[in-house]
Amino acid sequence: MPALNPDVEITCGPLPASQKIYIPGTLHPEIRVPMREISVHPTAGEPPVRVYDPSGPYTDPNVTIDIRQGLARLRQHWHKNNGTVTSYDGRDVQQVDNGVAPGTRHAVEDFPVKYRPFRAVGQTAITQLAYARAGIVTPEMEFVAIRENLGRARAINAARTAKRDGDSFGAAIPDFVTPEFVRDEIARGRAVIPANINHPEAEPMIIGRNFLVKINANIGNSAVTSSMEEEVEKMVWATRWGADTVMDLSTGRNIHNIREWIIRNAPVPIGTVPLYQALEKVDGIAEDLTWEVYRDTLIEQAEQGVDYFTIHAGLRLHHIPLTVDRVTGIVSRGGSIMAKWCLHHHRESFLYEHFAEICDICRAYDVTFSLGDGLRPGSIADANDAAQFAELETLGELTQIAWAKDCQVMIEGPGHVPMHKIKHNMDKQLEVCGEAPFYTLGPLTTDIAPGYDHITSGIGAAMIGWFGTAMLCYVTPKEHLGLPDRNDVKTGVITYKIAAHAADLAKGHPAAQMRDDALSRARFEFRWEDQFNLALDPETARSFHDQTLPKEAHKVAHFCSMCGPKFCSMRISHDIRADAQKEGMAAMAEKYRDGGDLYVTQPAP
Amino acid sequence: MPALNPDVEITCGPLPASQKIYIPGTLHPEIRVPMREISVHPTAGEPPVRVYDPSGPYTDPNVTIDIRQGLARLRQHWHKNNGTVTSYDGRDVQQVDNGVAPGTRHAVEDFPVKYRPFRAVGQTAITQLAYARAGIVTPEMEFVAIRENLGRARAINAARTAKRDGDSFGAAIPDFVTPEFVRDEIARGRAVIPANINHPEAEPMIIGRNFLVKINANIGNSAVTSSMEEEVEKMVWATRWGADTVMDLSTGRNIHNIREWIIRNAPVPIGTVPLYQALEKVDGIAEDLTWEVYRDTLIEQAEQGVDYFTIHAGLRLHHIPLTVDRVTGIVSRGGSIMAKWCLHHHRESFLYEHFAEICDICRAYDVTFSLGDGLRPGSIADANDAAQFAELETLGELTQIAWAKDCQVMIEGPGHVPMHKIKHNMDKQLEVCGEAPFYTLGPLTTDIAPGYDHITSGIGAAMIGWFGTAMLCYVTPKEHLGLPDRNDVKTGVITYKIAAHAADLAKGHPAAQMRDDALSRARFEFRWEDQFNLALDPETARSFHDQTLPKEAHKVAHFCSMCGPKFCSMRISHDIRADAQKEGMAAMAEKYRDGGDLYVTQPAP
Repeated sequence: MPALNPDVEITCGPLPASQKIYIPGTLHPEIRVPMREISVHPTAGEPPVRVYDPSGPYTDPNVTIDIRQGLARLRQHWHKNNGTVTSYDGRDVQQVDNGVAPGTRHAVEDFPVKYRPFRAVGQTAITQLAYARAGIVTPEMEFVAIRENLGRARAINAARTAKRDGDSFGAAIPDFVTPEFVRDEIARGRAVIPANINHPEAEPMIIGRNFLVKINANIGNSAVTSSMEEEVEKMVWATRWGADTVMDLSTGRNIHNIREWIIRNAPVPIGTVPLYQALEKVDGIAEDLTWEVYRDTLIEQAEQGVDYFTIHAGLRLHHIPLTVDRVTGIVSRGGSIMAKWCLHHHRESFLYEHFAEICDICRAYDVTFSLGDGLRPGSIADANDAAQFAELETLGELTQIAWAKDCQVMIEGPGHVPMHKIKHNMDKQLEVCGEAPFYTLGPLTTDIAPGYDHITSGIGAAMIGWFGTAMLCYVTPKEHLGLPDRNDVKTGVITYKIAAHAADLAKGHPAAQMRDDALSRARFEFRWEDQFNLALDPETARSFHDQTLPKEAHKVAHFCSMCGPKFCSMRISHDIRADAQKEGMAAMAEKYRDGGDLYVTQPAP
Repeated sequence: MPALNPDVEITCGPLPASQKIYIPGTLHPEIRVPMREISVHPTAGEPPVRVYDPSGPYTDPNVTIDIRQGLARLRQHWHKNNGTVTSYDGRDVQQVDNGVAPGTRHAVEDFPVKYRPFRAVGQTAITQLAYARAGIVTPEMEFVAIRENLGRARAINAARTAKRDGDSFGAAIPDFVTPEFVRDEIARGRAVIPANINHPEAEPMIIGRNFLVKINANIGNSAVTSSMEEEVEKMVWATRWGADTVMDLSTGRNIHNIREWIIRNAPVPIGTVPLYQALEKVDGIAEDLTWEVYRDTLIEQAEQGVDYFTIHAGLRLHHIPLTVDRVTGIVSRGGSIMAKWCLHHHRESFLYEHFAEICDICRAYDVTFSLGDGLRPGSIADANDAAQFAELETLGELTQIAWAKDCQVMIEGPGHVPMHKIKHNMDKQLEVCGEAPFYTLGPLTTDIAPGYDHITSGIGAAMIGWFGTAMLCYVTPKEHLGLPDRNDVKTGVITYKIAAHAADLAKGHPAAQMRDDALSRARFEFRWEDQFNLALDPETARSFHDQTLPKEAHKVAHFCSMCGPKFCSMRISHDIRADAQKEGMAAMAEKYRDGGDLYVTQPAP
């Protein structure tokens, strides 16, 4: 067993007042869907609030965590008994995969447990899309149906009296998410469940316009910084605060081994950009990339269990000149690498030429495509330009090819876009990509605030999420400036949970407002502890409160430090409500109205 | 001279690479309009970038700041030579104004200089609205025309080749802001210049839908915390980062004296909620408030120079029952105080009954109305409800009365509103309030993130600013939890500058994108110093960069810590551009296209 870096602690344990519960499946009794229940003070007379919980076993005090063991392989047996998949020896790990000899000073140790990879038997299609098209509800589909359905029982009752609210721009969000609805959405290509059969540790989740808006957090070491333990902890930390998927964007040394540690310990789908590792294998010389190196990297990562691949296959040779007069050229790393390769060899990229073969690989492991936007705009000036939309149209063509191969697909989107140009991005993506889920980075709504790009992009993310984007890739305060640390990861995740939730509210997701209402009732009733516990970030809420009024007694006070007792509007509102109950307010209101207007509106003289 | 608290330093000096310039008037040669010029590295071959600058003399190294002297009274002579205003002895300061005896332990010292207040002679209307209606372009109007026009000369040239971009939802933003346009907008009531004749230290600014979106920062001591020096520094600090107006929401002791120190040192308009001080004068017992106490407070504050008053006169007796079933009742402090008063006395409020007299006071000093939304929603559940909109309609009626009295008016708005209900707020306000400028608090787009409400509300603020709100009242991270400190003030201001600027971009304000373009060019050309200097917060941008790559050499590096040299998309883009210049890219693009598609789109089988 490798000794772990004692300086890095993996964050475990429940969030305040929270309990992990598991809901069993019906079609598939072996599944146990995790949720978090936040209890409220008994005086409230309210049931606990159930919230979606991507944090995995780390927040379950009944599970012992040892990252050298990895998480329990809960999906291990979901697939393997029906003769469609088979285990095999797999590709040997090579020195080039890590860029460093095993056992040398800079090498990250191998993950202690070695599993044989699985793949489809022959040409059998084992993707969620293939099953959905065949009319089969997989355990994954039932899992996500229950997961999305959180607290829906109560929401149903509320719906009997309250009209559903929101504007979903043509999405088709049902009152109930049934396993059959999940299957239908996947069969139509409108949703994906990224779930590589070699990542059985992950709890299934769904990405699609008719489901809760999801968020992704990027982590990854770079050439010189951070250790394996730090990256695993960043992944755990990101999911603790709400990241639904995590992308490992590592470059530099030890890419293979760090990824193995991450995947074996990840309760959420893991995405990668395989091009980054392929480029390391050719010493960073873009021109030296070959289909063979890339293909080998895809298989290497598919065998490890990567759930989705960003692939910049939509960047065509004739798109490149469209970027020459841009203010910020090509800002996607993958896009710029491929553009350089295309120019050097003066031909279409191997990603485009070999796209059908890439589909065959993805299909054998059920790796979901995340078709990369290599030409996304990197500045307000470049938003919605010809290069961006030309590539988007190619992504639409590739989507059809992938779908024909039974592969799951989502589409990546920008970038830097001013508010008035955001909706057009969504509309065009729906139009040319056949409603495949959109997965956007922000977008950033202005270029002028480096250091605050979680906010410039949180604005755009909330809006495009409302308009229909299925997953929002977070941006941290360090964007454009440096590598995010642990605090930046948390700030990015919380900001994007805000954006995603604001979008769910605006779309009229049936159960979204329950948490807002519970928190607002707590606020109005001066249940301070409940207000903290129901917050997206209970720790920060509590610490901000305690900076001004630290005493425990103040947490039951019927006022707060902002206004003090004399000016507390909520306290006064309670007095008014009490009066109303005494005197019968409706009748009083009529009397007031009959008193007539004291002022008559006068036209200007 | 009072000795100042040595622990509090007033922040002075220019921002990095910035120079204060002054542009003289034409119609009124005595005016000097301040702007900030940010220089860029000579290699860029670009002129300095001119930006709007509300920070006043504090960022001019040629001005010596002594808060015991106050700022220069630049508008002193703009009004006083035409026989329309007269100075008089003014109201004596009373112990009840401060709640503490002068010279005692807790008393804030008097401001050392005592000015005799001015007011209009007789019934003469001396408001900017009255002048505008009379066809007079005041010095204030020319001042704001020049101020709004920043860098417009360059924008004109750009406009010759580039189409104006944006969607302004029916606003009428001109290519050029002329003094006549300013006068027209004020005459129509669509814009206000809050400029009490007793606050000659302030640099005029304009609030209206057809001008740059402005932001307000709230400061103010509470019963136990913060000193006079701290509040003055918070005001200076807020304007340093971009606050266009500041509201002093102090409660507790020393209200009069702290306000005097703030106003005498404020380069921006100061707003207050006079009700807060009036309530202090009656020991916090809402029922004991009287018109006489309130009226006296209005005069006290008008004589000091408060530029705009929040007045909750729209809260009618018959509105109150509409709040009883709300999730969060009444959350406006002023609203709840007045509701309590109305219920206790069972009559319409003295604000409503004496509204015409309030107009007469405001008219004599040119105090702008900010008609308060005492019934704004305090939770997602209460957004856009009957109580909120009933009050808004009354505010529309009061607007007509104030306009008939030649008073300038803006209208306060919510609050907590989910994204899909934001636009209706703006549309309804325009409809019922005759296009008087809207001034909103956020709105917050979800209730579930206490500790991050600058972000939940920044999303809503950007959107409602785009839709037409003229000024955005900031929300800090401490909202709902505690009193903002200096860091919170800065975070709130920068977040709201982002929202306001994102709105300006989306509205298609002619010169808004210049700063984005300049910063993005710097980013693309690896001019790190320029990128920091052009940022809304240069200090944070630089410090984030230096956390990963602290060496000075890295600030000229053609890559950054995020991707390192091998993966730098911008570096690769430069290579591509160089190739294009060599080979003639347009011709190459044609050739690529002729090569034909390698893939033909296939329908799913």
